[in-house]
Amino acid sequence: MRDLAKHPELASLNGATVRERWNLQQIIDGCLRHGFGAIAPWRDQVQAMGVDAAAKALKASGLRVNGYCRGGLFTAADKAGLAKALEENRRAVDEAATIGADCVVLVAGGVAASGAKGIAGAHRQIEDGIAALLDYARPSGVKLAIEPLHPMYANDRACVNTLKHANDLCDKFGQGVGVAVDVYHTWWDLDLEREIARAGRAGTILGFHVCDWLAPTTDLLLDRGMMGDGVIDIPLIRGWVEAAGYAGFVEVEIFSAKNWWKRDPEEVLTVSRERLRTAC
Amino acid sequence: MRDLAKHPELASLNGATVRERWNLQQIIDGCLRHGFGAIAPWRDQVQAMGVDAAAKALKASGLRVNGYCRGGLFTAADKAGLAKALEENRRAVDEAATIGADCVVLVAGGVAASGAKGIAGAHRQIEDGIAALLDYARPSGVKLAIEPLHPMYANDRACVNTLKHANDLCDKFGQGVGVAVDVYHTWWDLDLEREIARAGRAGTILGFHVCDWLAPTTDLLLDRGMMGDGVIDIPLIRGWVEAAGYAGFVEVEIFSAKNWWKRDPEEVLTVSRERLRTAC
Repeated sequence: MRDLAKHPELASLNGATVRERWNLQQIIDGCLRHGFGAIAPWRDQVQAMGVDAAAKALKASGLRVNGYCRGGLFTAADKAGLAKALEENRRAVDEAATIGADCVVLVAGGVAASGAKGIAGAHRQIEDGIAALLDYARPSGVKLAIEPLHPMYANDRACVNTLKHANDLCDKFGQGVGVAVDVYHTWWDLDLEREIARAGRAGTILGFHVCDWLAPTTDLLLDRGMMGDGVIDIPLIRGWVEAAGYAGFVEVEIFSAKNWWKRDPEEVLTVSRERLRTAC
Repeated sequence: MRDLAKHPELASLNGATVRERWNLQQIIDGCLRHGFGAIAPWRDQVQAMGVDAAAKALKASGLRVNGYCRGGLFTAADKAGLAKALEENRRAVDEAATIGADCVVLVAGGVAASGAKGIAGAHRQIEDGIAALLDYARPSGVKLAIEPLHPMYANDRACVNTLKHANDLCDKFGQGVGVAVDVYHTWWDLDLEREIARAGRAGTILGFHVCDWLAPTTDLLLDRGMMGDGVIDIPLIRGWVEAAGYAGFVEVEIFSAKNWWKRDPEEVLTVSRERLRTAC
């Protein structure tokens, strides 16, 4: 396994971790101060700076832009909604190309937005959406990273909920699409080791995200923990990912409205850096 | 598919649905007033009445006791804890035999109680626990129904989180063990139809539970919905279960601290009865 203490540049910072208090330029500067090698910015912060200005700032920083957050949300209740979602995703791909991002992270879309009961219709919309977006993304060189989300988000955010499902989609769509493995979303999955190995053989692992599952978890979305504060055996999963050939970044992404988002981002990055060494 | 309007006796009431306001005798009487054919009582309510008295009351009611809640919680941080859990489960089997329950429902146990990071150790404890309990339960004729819980409970309650995992355990342990399929825990699972068919072929479906997934869900444990108020396509899943040969009860089990538990149980049963006809 790679030594994150000796190679701090293997870490990436997902902007969500500190975005409540910092704008994109501040996040870039924070990454540099704390030795991160990459950044995964969010669309609204890139747009707030201006896409061209953001591209310039990111290039000047020397940081790798390992992912762009986010695309997807392909489900909708009618044709107009589906078309709008696709258009939004095309813009995300354009922006990703402009800022030099390796991939757009796709949160598939939930059942609720599909306007139908049950999950089958949403799955069809998601497949159609990925297929259409891939046609657009392939010429740009921007890859699409399907991120399976925890099953508790199947209704609200994404009904691709296992790495197996994401891998199946990659098999179906081929070149230009891959997966992002987030320990928070996948740690419970009995098939995780096998599906990570499968993605590794396919060469489709485009991202590896870390945070922790807290006990108790008091909010479905915004109560994620700092690595080491929860129950996930992160080194075990990182070992699987790296044994599968993954040589990319370890991305810190923490949604924590009540704790980490309230703290000084400088402290958040200091602790993240320490936990990358001791708990990942 | 069976007609629940013409056959109200196919419904079972899980005591949790109304237990905040009713004791076991009141629940039994409510089941009879509302035409339920079966009941799934909880251990503490049976013990509060006295196991022999509960057995007598249940027998007198004519209700089938289709499940007993609950056993499992096999994970523990040390040998004493594991032994205590097994002893508690043996008592649950004894009580189930006394009250004439068809099975003890097993909530496997979570990672947290195992005292270790990661899920592998908890899985081993659960397998050991089921194996030991089966040796005890088989002679009594009481079956063990492994209920896969939603992955969001992997840490706190049960790290058997898919029907596939529960089916794998059934394959491993053979006679005397089966599964309980709850739409709330399993609706998101892409493999659900296939795994229901597999359980059907094995003849191991011991229970089918209904409630609904609300949007939004505000609490991980106690914000479950009345059938029809959420996003689950319950008739679709019931169709799969019955096509797989399941001829048992449709059990209403609603954990709803903020809504249904606060209402008059008489109303809860009236609405449940209606929704069994219109939304299941």
